[in-house]
Amino acid sequence: METKKIAVMQKLLKANDAVAEGIRSELREKNVFFVNLMSSPGSGKTTLVEETVRRLGKRIKVVEGDIQTTLDAERLQKLGIQAYQINTGPFGGDCHLEAAWIRAAIDELGLDGMDYLFVENIGNLVCPAEFDVGAHLNVLLLSVTEGEDKPLKYPLAFQVSQLCLVTKTDFLPLRNFSLQKLRGNIRQVNPACAVIEVSAHSGAGMESWIEILKNRPNFQS
Amino acid sequence: METKKIAVMQKLLKANDAVAEGIRSELREKNVFFVNLMSSPGSGKTTLVEETVRRLGKRIKVVEGDIQTTLDAERLQKLGIQAYQINTGPFGGDCHLEAAWIRAAIDELGLDGMDYLFVENIGNLVCPAEFDVGAHLNVLLLSVTEGEDKPLKYPLAFQVSQLCLVTKTDFLPLRNFSLQKLRGNIRQVNPACAVIEVSAHSGAGMESWIEILKNRPNFQS
Repeated sequence: METKKIAVMQKLLKANDAVAEGIRSELREKNVFFVNLMSSPGSGKTTLVEETVRRLGKRIKVVEGDIQTTLDAERLQKLGIQAYQINTGPFGGDCHLEAAWIRAAIDELGLDGMDYLFVENIGNLVCPAEFDVGAHLNVLLLSVTEGEDKPLKYPLAFQVSQLCLVTKTDFLPLRNFSLQKLRGNIRQVNPACAVIEVSAHSGAGMESWIEILKNRPNFQS
Repeated sequence: METKKIAVMQKLLKANDAVAEGIRSELREKNVFFVNLMSSPGSGKTTLVEETVRRLGKRIKVVEGDIQTTLDAERLQKLGIQAYQINTGPFGGDCHLEAAWIRAAIDELGLDGMDYLFVENIGNLVCPAEFDVGAHLNVLLLSVTEGEDKPLKYPLAFQVSQLCLVTKTDFLPLRNFSLQKLRGNIRQVNPACAVIEVSAHSGAGMESWIEILKNRPNFQS
């Protein structure tokens, strides 16, 4: 029973990976840099995207993943950018996004007038990490109020990411949160993961984030 | 394909529900009140349990759910209570706990010297809500830093819960967080869900929480 379940899962993941690779190479050809944002619920993905649009300009399109509601897409549309909402509710409340759904969203949004594609994955530190969506850069957001132990408890999400953004650093003075301990825990599960601290609220660290987006790491194969 | 997937899922859930009902009635007979704690990663489940043990005493046993690590069980064992860790990592990093695993953990912990059983579910607002673990009280923790929109975006987790604990209220002065808006959103998805605000950090609201545990709602069938 368990063996069969694993075999089916491997087949699904293999099919997903092929679609993801197709997205990655097509967007590279079209010079669109694709960033996949993953985090727990409420770590600040939408607020980060809002601040990124204000700093980087409007040649950004966004795919929003949520179980229910179009709240996040509406927030972004107010900034004058195109945002496409995927609701997984009708599919049993799926806890992740798959490459095929991103493919459909890209077809809907179109590739014109676009230098960057952002995907806000479902708020979840477990399931999204198992599905490649075809991004050039996987980014893991962790807010300081979530605690330093999260890389050890949810290692896969940190292992598939090339960058970790430690968000809501304006809360730091209120709690006994150790950035040093967090960095040590990230290094333990993924030594290659870059880490920067940001607060979309105060603006601290946002320049480093924008710089990374402009440099487009991993974009040239 | 989709139909078959749903049929298999329904069969799994039905089998799970039968085990959950067995746990619920056995614990009621033995006068053990079973509380299932669900939340995003880092909403403060372990800290709440620590503070609950300090106030309610040591006749509490805890089952800890995590993908990896025994960090949380170790924190609780330091308080002199029995804590059993379930790591779902070996099962493909499963994103929820099932009733059969709770059954095995209870057999391991034993029912003697115990008035309360707490389960800390996997940090995830999606998957745990789909699996009844046999609790008498499902509690959803939401920290104020996660935002008021979460009940609308993750409705099922709020719909299966009888109580919502709004945690980390000591952060409230720092942000434009509206408790009124949050309560309205919870009411919208589950009008029957009770809501109390707590801070394990400052102690605010902890007495109301302990009072609820002493009253054991839904315990008499």
